[in-house]
Amino acid sequence: MKYAKIISSGLYAPSKIMTNQEFERLVHFTIDPYFTEQIGINHRRLSNEEETPTYMAAEAAKRALARINMKPEEIDLIIVGTDTPEAISPPDAARVQYLIGAHKAEPLAFNVNASCANGALLLDIASRYIALGDYKNVLVIGVYAMTKFLSWKYSWEALFSDGAGALILTASDEPGYLGSVARCDGSWWYNWGIYMGAGTMNLQGFERGLHKLDLRAAYPATVNEEGWPLLLNRLMEKCNFSKDEIGMIFFTQVRKKTIQKVMETMGLAEEKAHMIMHKYGYTGSACVYMAYDDAFDEGKLNDLEGKVIIFLTSGVGYQQVAVAFRV
Amino acid sequence: MKYAKIISSGLYAPSKIMTNQEFERLVHFTIDPYFTEQIGINHRRLSNEEETPTYMAAEAAKRALARINMKPEEIDLIIVGTDTPEAISPPDAARVQYLIGAHKAEPLAFNVNASCANGALLLDIASRYIALGDYKNVLVIGVYAMTKFLSWKYSWEALFSDGAGALILTASDEPGYLGSVARCDGSWWYNWGIYMGAGTMNLQGFERGLHKLDLRAAYPATVNEEGWPLLLNRLMEKCNFSKDEIGMIFFTQVRKKTIQKVMETMGLAEEKAHMIMHKYGYTGSACVYMAYDDAFDEGKLNDLEGKVIIFLTSGVGYQQVAVAFRV
Repeated sequence: MKYAKIISSGLYAPSKIMTNQEFERLVHFTIDPYFTEQIGINHRRLSNEEETPTYMAAEAAKRALARINMKPEEIDLIIVGTDTPEAISPPDAARVQYLIGAHKAEPLAFNVNASCANGALLLDIASRYIALGDYKNVLVIGVYAMTKFLSWKYSWEALFSDGAGALILTASDEPGYLGSVARCDGSWWYNWGIYMGAGTMNLQGFERGLHKLDLRAAYPATVNEEGWPLLLNRLMEKCNFSKDEIGMIFFTQVRKKTIQKVMETMGLAEEKAHMIMHKYGYTGSACVYMAYDDAFDEGKLNDLEGKVIIFLTSGVGYQQVAVAFRV
Repeated sequence: MKYAKIISSGLYAPSKIMTNQEFERLVHFTIDPYFTEQIGINHRRLSNEEETPTYMAAEAAKRALARINMKPEEIDLIIVGTDTPEAISPPDAARVQYLIGAHKAEPLAFNVNASCANGALLLDIASRYIALGDYKNVLVIGVYAMTKFLSWKYSWEALFSDGAGALILTASDEPGYLGSVARCDGSWWYNWGIYMGAGTMNLQGFERGLHKLDLRAAYPATVNEEGWPLLLNRLMEKCNFSKDEIGMIFFTQVRKKTIQKVMETMGLAEEKAHMIMHKYGYTGSACVYMAYDDAFDEGKLNDLEGKVIIFLTSGVGYQQVAVAFRV
């Protein structure tokens, strides 16, 4: 068996910024100081017309390739995770394969959708491909273009931002990948989503506003506040590592206070949860890869040799996935 | 290492039928005898309003569970493959988890999109989950609701039909799963698809007709006529089995003459490629699981012990995936 190791990262963030003050003027709600203090978000990035999901995904991927001087044709598998795809069909991943110049090598490329839980899930799938020995280099990309699905009238829409993050994994004889845990409860499926699809992608669906992100019933805060510690404890038990071995946790960057509370519950120092929502807003499927890239560039991953890093991601549906790697 | 074995199957097909003659009257094109003779399709199934993707997927899954008296809570992982999803987000898989009554056990559930190559790809992903020993029973479902995306004015739309197919895999100490091969070339991404998504899911996108399946440039017949033998030869070499060991091949049910030609090219008897397009039309991501279920019920899988069965699926983008199992 081979073990996946993360060897590179890249991120792409649109340059256009909307501050909380600009959001308040547009939407006619006051979101601060709550949004800055509790959520941790004081501005968001808005993709323009050219910054489509496949464009942003390809740019993040190119940066991850460039960082280690890897040629696109060395990639054996490309997985794109998103719930804001550029098309219903074909999958964005095939277009990204072409945009990064990998198509002549014909690597398999597919999309995964576990909503914003994609970050940890793609790493788990990639690691299982690498494990059997027939795939060496795997490119995983999370991309989020949720501002393109907003109505710009709800206070909660201040959460959303656009961007892409990419990681490259390669096969190693030593861990690397330790394992994963996950939970999903589809009884929450109708709470929050973009409910246009087969049978509703028509004018009646438009009149009902199904083409927009819809918050129909709020999730309780406990979903993450209790769910994340539960998954972290399961992950430690399953993968046989202790709390002291945790070097860094990349959580879904959805709410600063929740991350702080979970770290406190776990008895872990807050600085072991790298946060980027103050830089990039909430970028869904992209956020944990963007956080990894940011932590790497800040030198925070330098002294973690032998430690465990964890990606723990949550998404509507709902899904929660956690995956651990020995550095 | 554990090996995935297929232990059950189920299918769901809408009861509403449209014959070729009815299609001709609606669309004002003559499609027969070509469609019946070359494509192998003389009617199609149309899902009604209640027969949504998650409904059809759940019905196929329930039949697969019932066939072996497995309880929904025994399923550890649910993967839904479709490029005709019920929503943009959350993934259909979470809703299917709920509809089959598995949500209290909280198994991971996510969507995959490699367009109509999903059939073989989901089996490959499921097998890699089972391989590492921490997932035992995996439910894979392919679902297709493409008639909900048709304009009902093009002759090529006669191809499409709705339905769902489900397979259950379980861990075994013996193969089972032998391996997979794949190829993808994203330079074909704009040929054929449903090009509504982030940035275009708006009224301008509707006016451009992006909410409908669009054939912008035809694929050459050689994509499958040459691509399928290429993949079959690679699969035999990689997984170390001979042509004589092939018991059955389930190809994407897109064109009868192509399947016949590929079997001739390979020097294989035509009856080793089970076909169902005359019964169910073309059902994309669902078709190879529906074909397996149909072959099982016809008793065609009874005498294959020790033989190899292959799933070989193609989709727009394009993607091609082949996976082999020792029976």
